[in-house]
Amino acid sequence: MRISRIGEFGLIENIKKWIKHKDISVIKGIDDDCAIIEFDKKNYLLFCCDMLVEDVDFTREIPFYLIGRKAMGVVLSDIASKAGIPKYSLISLGLPKDITLNSIKELYKGFKFWMKKFSFEIVGGDISRAERLIIDISMLGRVEKEKVPLRSNAKLNDIIFITDRLGKPKKHLYFLPRIKEARYLVNNFSINSMIDISDGLTQDLNHILKQSNVGAVIYEKLIPTFKTKKDIETIINQGEEFELLFTVTPKEAKRIIAKKLYYPIGQIVSGDYGFKLIDKNFKEKDIRIKGFRHF
Amino acid sequence: MRISRIGEFGLIENIKKWIKHKDISVIKGIDDDCAIIEFDKKNYLLFCCDMLVEDVDFTREIPFYLIGRKAMGVVLSDIASKAGIPKYSLISLGLPKDITLNSIKELYKGFKFWMKKFSFEIVGGDISRAERLIIDISMLGRVEKEKVPLRSNAKLNDIIFITDRLGKPKKHLYFLPRIKEARYLVNNFSINSMIDISDGLTQDLNHILKQSNVGAVIYEKLIPTFKTKKDIETIINQGEEFELLFTVTPKEAKRIIAKKLYYPIGQIVSGDYGFKLIDKNFKEKDIRIKGFRHF
Repeated sequence: MRISRIGEFGLIENIKKWIKHKDISVIKGIDDDCAIIEFDKKNYLLFCCDMLVEDVDFTREIPFYLIGRKAMGVVLSDIASKAGIPKYSLISLGLPKDITLNSIKELYKGFKFWMKKFSFEIVGGDISRAERLIIDISMLGRVEKEKVPLRSNAKLNDIIFITDRLGKPKKHLYFLPRIKEARYLVNNFSINSMIDISDGLTQDLNHILKQSNVGAVIYEKLIPTFKTKKDIETIINQGEEFELLFTVTPKEAKRIIAKKLYYPIGQIVSGDYGFKLIDKNFKEKDIRIKGFRHF
Repeated sequence: MRISRIGEFGLIENIKKWIKHKDISVIKGIDDDCAIIEFDKKNYLLFCCDMLVEDVDFTREIPFYLIGRKAMGVVLSDIASKAGIPKYSLISLGLPKDITLNSIKELYKGFKFWMKKFSFEIVGGDISRAERLIIDISMLGRVEKEKVPLRSNAKLNDIIFITDRLGKPKKHLYFLPRIKEARYLVNNFSINSMIDISDGLTQDLNHILKQSNVGAVIYEKLIPTFKTKKDIETIINQGEEFELLFTVTPKEAKRIIAKKLYYPIGQIVSGDYGFKLIDKNFKEKDIRIKGFRHF
């Protein structure tokens, strides 16, 4: 069977079966944004990677500096979604023969743009030849054990928040990995679950619902957006937002709402209720997941 | 300037300048087979990656099982070269649309072939679409601080060894990452420097020479080979051998030679002497580095 028939998530379900974990030091494997690994008494190690391929994830019409910035930003967003502190990264490059040294220097400027902000290090990588430019970055980070917000820990009645408005113009290039926001949140509040909205709000929230065995209701009137001509369905299904979505108890939610920093958009309900959108006329709609997929 | 003009190692020299390390927890970065990172009192963390690209590093005429085995074997060989114990890996795949689920299952069988032997875990990865199959594997391992054999620590008069004969038929598919041999060596002897011969004996030994500021003499008569029609120059320059090359003091060398497990092939000399081959007629020749390069 071709993978275009079973789809990206069908493939991931298969891979899960092939690589069942035996080692108890692996807290989370393929099921979360990062692998979560036993490190020391206080901390977990976070380990994740993201591959970008020319003409699939970007085109060469985009300046190399911005391609580099995006490639590193995407993997930093994974670390952010587990409230981690990024530490060390490796960069594998597949390079077309005709690429110039200067273009690669610009790529690296993009990678390094984030180093100043988040003080991690690029510690190596690999180089191969390829027909199209390929960038695969792996990242190590750490997070305190008692603070890590999993996908699988959303609780009944939790309030669902997102960190900023959706539909920002050019968001796929100029997004900010929410490392600092995530650290602020776990340092000041008890966060039950968290994910980044890289594949679309509905699809990513749905990962939390499935892994936590719960349902959710989100309210169109509460979903904050930038000025846009797109309708709400498009916005909640489109990928590359890179905001964080998190859930907290109603009690914690009150404290967070008081800060006026983040946006409550709905609530966790029981699993048999499913996943619904209350539209602006207060009509309930079933949500059909249509986020970004490679296949 | 096109990178095909400055070459793979010219590019790496440039990247080194762009990513100078400030963090003292980074013991070695781009300069060794793995990044070596402060972990705890006793151990370093090893962190490395290898990218294989279809039609550059393999073709689809090779069974997927063997492609997977090779892709994971290459990165395990990097861990072996620092005498590490492999622990956790991430697999990024760039997949053509027409690939079948069964082919990917075969790839994973290849990856998993090594898990039984070396008991590490696959903890996640990423999937993208690509025109050609791309496999990039990153690996975390650990090694005791007092045992890690660097590229930069070869000493004057050290004896140079390799772990097995060179020129084995189909070595690029059926090699064994020398994890167990490396562990045996560092557990029983004091190993000054080590590298794997993935880019060819001369090129990889030359990395040790440059980073240790020394020269070397190797002896054609001492270089063990499988039955082959290739001449010695071809054999010492060809990549994908995946044996280990290591250096030890003459005193340690005696103990290792007594075990009759590994092959002494030459000696470390002073840097101004350069890098020479003594041929089978005992004529001294300058060695010109001609190992595998992507550009």
